[in-house]
Amino acid sequence: MTSVGIDAVEIWTGNLKLDLPGTFAPQKGEDPEKYTKGLGLNASSFPDSYEDIVTMGANAAYRLMDRKGLEPDDIGRIDVATESAFDNSKPVSTYVAGCLEQVFEGDFHHANKGERKFACIAGTQSLDDAYNWIRADRHRGRSAIVIATDTALYARGDAGEATQGAGAVAMLISEDPNLVELSAEQGFGSADETDFLKPNQQFPSVDGKRSVQVYLARMREALIDYQREAGEITVGDFQYAPFHTPFPGMVRKAALLAYRHITRDTEIEEELAEEIGRQPREEAFEDEEAFTDAIREYMDGLKGTERYQAWYAETIDPTLTIARDVGNWYTGSVHVARASALKHAAENDRDMVGEQLLVGSYGSGAQAEIHTETVKENWLEEIEALNVDEQLESRYDIDWDDYEEIHDAHNHEMDVDIEPLTTPEGEFAFDGWGRMGERKYRYVE
Amino acid sequence: MTSVGIDAVEIWTGNLKLDLPGTFAPQKGEDPEKYTKGLGLNASSFPDSYEDIVTMGANAAYRLMDRKGLEPDDIGRIDVATESAFDNSKPVSTYVAGCLEQVFEGDFHHANKGERKFACIAGTQSLDDAYNWIRADRHRGRSAIVIATDTALYARGDAGEATQGAGAVAMLISEDPNLVELSAEQGFGSADETDFLKPNQQFPSVDGKRSVQVYLARMREALIDYQREAGEITVGDFQYAPFHTPFPGMVRKAALLAYRHITRDTEIEEELAEEIGRQPREEAFEDEEAFTDAIREYMDGLKGTERYQAWYAETIDPTLTIARDVGNWYTGSVHVARASALKHAAENDRDMVGEQLLVGSYGSGAQAEIHTETVKENWLEEIEALNVDEQLESRYDIDWDDYEEIHDAHNHEMDVDIEPLTTPEGEFAFDGWGRMGERKYRYVE
Repeated sequence: MTSVGIDAVEIWTGNLKLDLPGTFAPQKGEDPEKYTKGLGLNASSFPDSYEDIVTMGANAAYRLMDRKGLEPDDIGRIDVATESAFDNSKPVSTYVAGCLEQVFEGDFHHANKGERKFACIAGTQSLDDAYNWIRADRHRGRSAIVIATDTALYARGDAGEATQGAGAVAMLISEDPNLVELSAEQGFGSADETDFLKPNQQFPSVDGKRSVQVYLARMREALIDYQREAGEITVGDFQYAPFHTPFPGMVRKAALLAYRHITRDTEIEEELAEEIGRQPREEAFEDEEAFTDAIREYMDGLKGTERYQAWYAETIDPTLTIARDVGNWYTGSVHVARASALKHAAENDRDMVGEQLLVGSYGSGAQAEIHTETVKENWLEEIEALNVDEQLESRYDIDWDDYEEIHDAHNHEMDVDIEPLTTPEGEFAFDGWGRMGERKYRYVE
Repeated sequence: MTSVGIDAVEIWTGNLKLDLPGTFAPQKGEDPEKYTKGLGLNASSFPDSYEDIVTMGANAAYRLMDRKGLEPDDIGRIDVATESAFDNSKPVSTYVAGCLEQVFEGDFHHANKGERKFACIAGTQSLDDAYNWIRADRHRGRSAIVIATDTALYARGDAGEATQGAGAVAMLISEDPNLVELSAEQGFGSADETDFLKPNQQFPSVDGKRSVQVYLARMREALIDYQREAGEITVGDFQYAPFHTPFPGMVRKAALLAYRHITRDTEIEEELAEEIGRQPREEAFEDEEAFTDAIREYMDGLKGTERYQAWYAETIDPTLTIARDVGNWYTGSVHVARASALKHAAENDRDMVGEQLLVGSYGSGAQAEIHTETVKENWLEEIEALNVDEQLESRYDIDWDDYEEIHDAHNHEMDVDIEPLTTPEGEFAFDGWGRMGERKYRYVE
């Protein structure tokens, strides 16, 4: 069976940067470590006034096609995943295609364009659809472009305000991919939950505590479902485990839970038992509270073991490097985590060919998906082509007044027209409104 | 290769009915024939105050699962297509699954739930995704439920107001389907168009004239793309051609265009030439205007021929029967047209096993998709199980005051709380708001 997966990836950040310890914390009168240690975040990427989900998505896709030497005829499918859509009918993918047709000869008139919405998991769902389309042999030799793009803004003063972010990830899905092959096996954990939603509103209503619980519960369910399909896994099977990263602190919790879950009834549990005891089993406890307390105690112990810390430092922490500097990109987040991990491998001369990634995607509302990926021969060349470091470095560092103004400019309920803080160059930019209220775009040389 | 397609279908209409010639026309001071002849519409289905895209979708899916004797474990995927979403993050499919879990034992925790948006074509795109998922052999023997659900309302006074509608179609996608098998071949015609959109608004902005042109242009492009994949087709290959039906008058135009296109350079063109001449060829004309005039003249002639009229009466007109009484259901529309055609076949004792349908889907913004379907052995049993006639018959016929009130009740920008006009029975109903602004539902016995 031919392998199908991600041939190439590009990341596009919003052009502004909000410094959390330096700008946000002092203004909120908070200890900067609340952000840097608690959430695990140093900065958010923010969109300038001429940026939105279309410009960021089109810029990422343009870089991708340009670098890979692709023409519109090579693309049979453009799917955009977002939860920041500004139109309830016309999909973002049509706007993106319109942008790309400004800079390429030819057109995407025979490509299937679509849009998926399911909080932060829709990017992975679109990846799946593209994979299935190729496996179903309906692609006529062409590739799919999947774009995950979001402006993850919260209402001013919301508890989530520090976790904001804005950026896009574009992925090329092909046969015989250069970067990673996707597993046919998938595990799902899904339930009708009210942890995070946007009922007829742009900014989310969030129950932060519930959202953490639901993330962990659905992820655990997905992992069990995955193992039912693919067989048991052990913590040593994976070089990295990129997970959806609303903020790095969330992944710290998830990693500990996953480690405990995966090592139960294994040699690792036995080997750790001398130091922290065996894992509590529910049947040994008279009531749930006592069991929960015992679990908490075990988790605290596990977190302190050298063995867990070494695994976390090797397998999880490298997936969070980019997230720490960009915040939450919603649909793009797990795909940023994958790129972050592979970048770490490249920078540390890890030989990744044939190695496995355990990928955990999540969307509030709520659903988790687990699959694995096998790193392919040409991964290093693909990862070395990323210019994300330069992009992050060249963001404009906004002060508090800038922040207040630019947040208003992106608020759909406000009619604010401000001067951009940066000058677009070699990228798509918002170019005003059309006669039917549509957003218009142009490529700025 | 195993066949994959639609195993079963259910239709759920909004519980209210707006009579266009009887109630709408007099109020607008218009000739009733403007609606019945011009648009081809007698009535719209309308949602009562306790109905929305979730209740209609869940009701259709419940009927489907109940009739087919399915349990949640039989379902591996629930995708909802809509352009009437009321949440920018949490997908309708999670709400629908939550409803179904009220009435079934078991749950959908390992089903992949999603939501697609692309104006009216997203229902067909979801069908494709389900087809590809099965063909990719990732379904573990399970089926997919695809739900197309919309409340297609326009702003009061908008030119589209007469074409409103509300309803849902639920389809079961399986291996060895009972109803129709989908072709692997598809044709796409797609471009970045501004014919109909909803920029940060519930009700659409529409350029009616442009929308007709774009529908025809994209459909033609899709037909050409389909023929490139599947080979030439002739007008006799298909028993019916269900097309997206914003209003039956639109399909009248599309059918004429398709007929002309498909018969060019065929014996049919030669046989019709005695009566109306051969089709005008662009190269024979000095300027485009003269060519366009000649085309228009040929089309007028073609429309009047017995041969075309017989084909239209057999192949197209039967697809419009339900649409005439329900209006536009957006994502559900083309799937209502298929059901309408097969219902006609059942009522007229047509032997359909092995016969072909030419299915034309369309979404503004804009994209058309053409594929074909082969009718399967058990189609008659499936179609005879539909209770759509009873549903349409039992709708509550609203008067003008009711209409004004219920339109306001469904306007997201108004806070109107009205008594329902009907009493829910054996169906899901809206049950008030949760603490985070979410909509809640319950099953009413």
